[in-house]
Amino acid sequence: MKYTYISDLKDHVGKEVTIAGWLYNKRSSGKVRFVIVRDGTGICQTTAFKPEVDPAVFETCDKLDQETSLKVTGVVRKDDRAPGGYELSIKEITILGESKDFPISPKEHGVAFLMENRHLWLRSIKQHATLRVRHQVIKAVRDFFDNRGFTLLDTPILTANACEGTTTLFETDYFGQKAYLSQSGQLYNEANAMAFGKVYCFGPTFRAEKSKTRRHLTEFWMVEPEVAFMDLEGNMDLAEEFVEYVVGQVVEKCRNELKILERDITKLECVKRPFPRISYAETQKFLQTKKEEYASSADPELKKLSEDMLKNGLGDDLGAADETAIGINHDRPVMVHRYPSAVKAFYMKNDPQNPEYALCVDVIAPEGVGEIIGGGQREESLEVLEGKIKHHGLPLEAFKWYLDLRRYGTVPHSGFGMGIERMVTWVTGTHHVRETIPFPRLMDTIWP
Amino acid sequence: MKYTYISDLKDHVGKEVTIAGWLYNKRSSGKVRFVIVRDGTGICQTTAFKPEVDPAVFETCDKLDQETSLKVTGVVRKDDRAPGGYELSIKEITILGESKDFPISPKEHGVAFLMENRHLWLRSIKQHATLRVRHQVIKAVRDFFDNRGFTLLDTPILTANACEGTTTLFETDYFGQKAYLSQSGQLYNEANAMAFGKVYCFGPTFRAEKSKTRRHLTEFWMVEPEVAFMDLEGNMDLAEEFVEYVVGQVVEKCRNELKILERDITKLECVKRPFPRISYAETQKFLQTKKEEYASSADPELKKLSEDMLKNGLGDDLGAADETAIGINHDRPVMVHRYPSAVKAFYMKNDPQNPEYALCVDVIAPEGVGEIIGGGQREESLEVLEGKIKHHGLPLEAFKWYLDLRRYGTVPHSGFGMGIERMVTWVTGTHHVRETIPFPRLMDTIWP
Repeated sequence: MKYTYISDLKDHVGKEVTIAGWLYNKRSSGKVRFVIVRDGTGICQTTAFKPEVDPAVFETCDKLDQETSLKVTGVVRKDDRAPGGYELSIKEITILGESKDFPISPKEHGVAFLMENRHLWLRSIKQHATLRVRHQVIKAVRDFFDNRGFTLLDTPILTANACEGTTTLFETDYFGQKAYLSQSGQLYNEANAMAFGKVYCFGPTFRAEKSKTRRHLTEFWMVEPEVAFMDLEGNMDLAEEFVEYVVGQVVEKCRNELKILERDITKLECVKRPFPRISYAETQKFLQTKKEEYASSADPELKKLSEDMLKNGLGDDLGAADETAIGINHDRPVMVHRYPSAVKAFYMKNDPQNPEYALCVDVIAPEGVGEIIGGGQREESLEVLEGKIKHHGLPLEAFKWYLDLRRYGTVPHSGFGMGIERMVTWVTGTHHVRETIPFPRLMDTIWP
Repeated sequence: MKYTYISDLKDHVGKEVTIAGWLYNKRSSGKVRFVIVRDGTGICQTTAFKPEVDPAVFETCDKLDQETSLKVTGVVRKDDRAPGGYELSIKEITILGESKDFPISPKEHGVAFLMENRHLWLRSIKQHATLRVRHQVIKAVRDFFDNRGFTLLDTPILTANACEGTTTLFETDYFGQKAYLSQSGQLYNEANAMAFGKVYCFGPTFRAEKSKTRRHLTEFWMVEPEVAFMDLEGNMDLAEEFVEYVVGQVVEKCRNELKILERDITKLECVKRPFPRISYAETQKFLQTKKEEYASSADPELKKLSEDMLKNGLGDDLGAADETAIGINHDRPVMVHRYPSAVKAFYMKNDPQNPEYALCVDVIAPEGVGEIIGGGQREESLEVLEGKIKHHGLPLEAFKWYLDLRRYGTVPHSGFGMGIERMVTWVTGTHHVRETIPFPRLMDTIWP
């Protein structure tokens, strides 16, 4: 069962090959039949010219439906007009599996319908391109860390403690005790960093959030590096180099996919270091100016944005509208650092210069995609950390092992997390995060 | 906060650098102090010679406890006798964090104690080496598929259907309905293969099995390739090439780690294609011979093995004892194919030559590690598959989307799954699978 992949046709020009795949499209014009085949690696136009082929070939061509599986034998010709650049002159064609009334026709379908048929929607050219970009993003992420001496250490999904409250956690019974699906590998990552220096984890994370925005999934993939002896500045340097690398790899390796997705590549090509680094305090001033400007804007979208921004008070975490306002005013990601410590997790280190603020950083993507990275420097003092845990009303006992990391050779350390689907949403220019993962899980979607 | 990594010392011979890390060990001998530092990237001996250094340096050296965090400034010297090959002459030494009574001393500890202190045990040299091999195994797995044109497509963890019974599934509440943690991405993989041709998924999988063997985890990582237009033979070719590549990469890239683990590398170097391919029926004859041979053996371990093998009847799936018997009689993995279809999953295609047997394959590792790969060719006929689902007493409705893959352009396809921890257990020669993942999850272990 050896066939030639469409992506390999370039190596077989002038030779006879057999390809196997599915009917992507067909056209006919008098004595010619155009049978366009997809095999997952590419798309190939195969042609039958009546005087030249067996009548049975012509008959078969006329019986093909969208997504019929088939194999085609013929000689490979280079043809720049053909999609993919190569054509096959059909010598033999065989139907392998029928496909009566394939549900997703080239006409427009509602999103609910497409989501119910996600297992088939994946065959569409735009979904295919989006997920090929996802593949490349993930590969770039891993290559970045592997090439810099990081050790991949998978952190557990099943955890015993609901350290920061159970409201957004999925719970399960673990042989008689309660367990929760992890929202982040960070605490475990810190133990790993103390053993391996530079580490990252990369796996699915879970949030049982009752939100239905276009930026939220209940199950999403996150990569989290953590580095011993790295401070906030080093963390921002790393995040900046990382984002530049990942976007650069997509631009270099996914030209074809980005073209299919009609993505404006110039918006990605300008993602070069240095990224603006703006403190939360400065950001607030910037947002105040924009809020006023947009309030009197003639553009209804900006006016609406201004209203949404008003809902967020000074001292709050940045809201989605704030992040949008930052994103649409910059041509590259913006690193907002030193948020009020009150809105950040207990393990963030306070700024010694100004303890009301935390040594943290969020990276806000341009074009209104919002936060793609969140991270910071961790508190390394045992006493301060114990105090913070108590202050947050968290159970000290649950953190015994975590506090051991400060008890035995504590060191300054930092890290961050990047959500893969947010990143793919941004680089592909996709409107809703649900299209950036093969089988999205949303509040109202767990099937197929 | 810029320090030199110990793994980079080779580039700084004769120069003054500062390293930062933890006290791994120390020795003193009259006027000399040896302070051995680990930083996660390597181990470096730093030395202070009394007449040459500030008395404060000497005093600090004497105050260091195991796992004290510190930084050391000094000149790099090449010294083949030193662990790692490079030494530092201490000019300055600073304690960053104390470490009083680090729980894991060089003396022997019980496994229960080490597992409770897993977050600290990771700093031990053998655990470090084992998990570095894990890193390399995972990198090799991804490189193998990425370099062969496979697309990585993550399959969901949260799934709505408990298709094959709920007894070994972790269950959670998903916004008012029941959901389960995935045991395998295979069904979704098949949808992906119909869209992308050659795909793989790679993520954590979950089994709520009440078993306490040294081969079982409740949470483990699995890689699963799936290929359209590939039959059982192609699947065995792929599995064989894959295992050879992964083992080869470990032998090539992890020399130092395998040495620390005292692994006999010759046992890995002979893992070369072709692997023996033996049908289940032939395997039974082989096992019968061994059972008899071992029953009269003077070796009590073999006698015990023979007894364990007796518990398994003809027509059953292979038991752990059977796999051990196969493994200890071969110097490379054995591919056992065509098991009785009755013991395999409903989606396996029956052998057209002999429908009582399924077109499946398990790869049994040598040295008694057991099965590392399971897979096979999938049933592509809609009618046959519907019949099998009913025959297994499974709910047809739950498989509607899966059956669509046969309704719309069905094609022959195959794939397999490999458990990462089993693979790491084998290549590192580790006794228990729990040491091959940073934070193992066992029936009685979900903390730390």
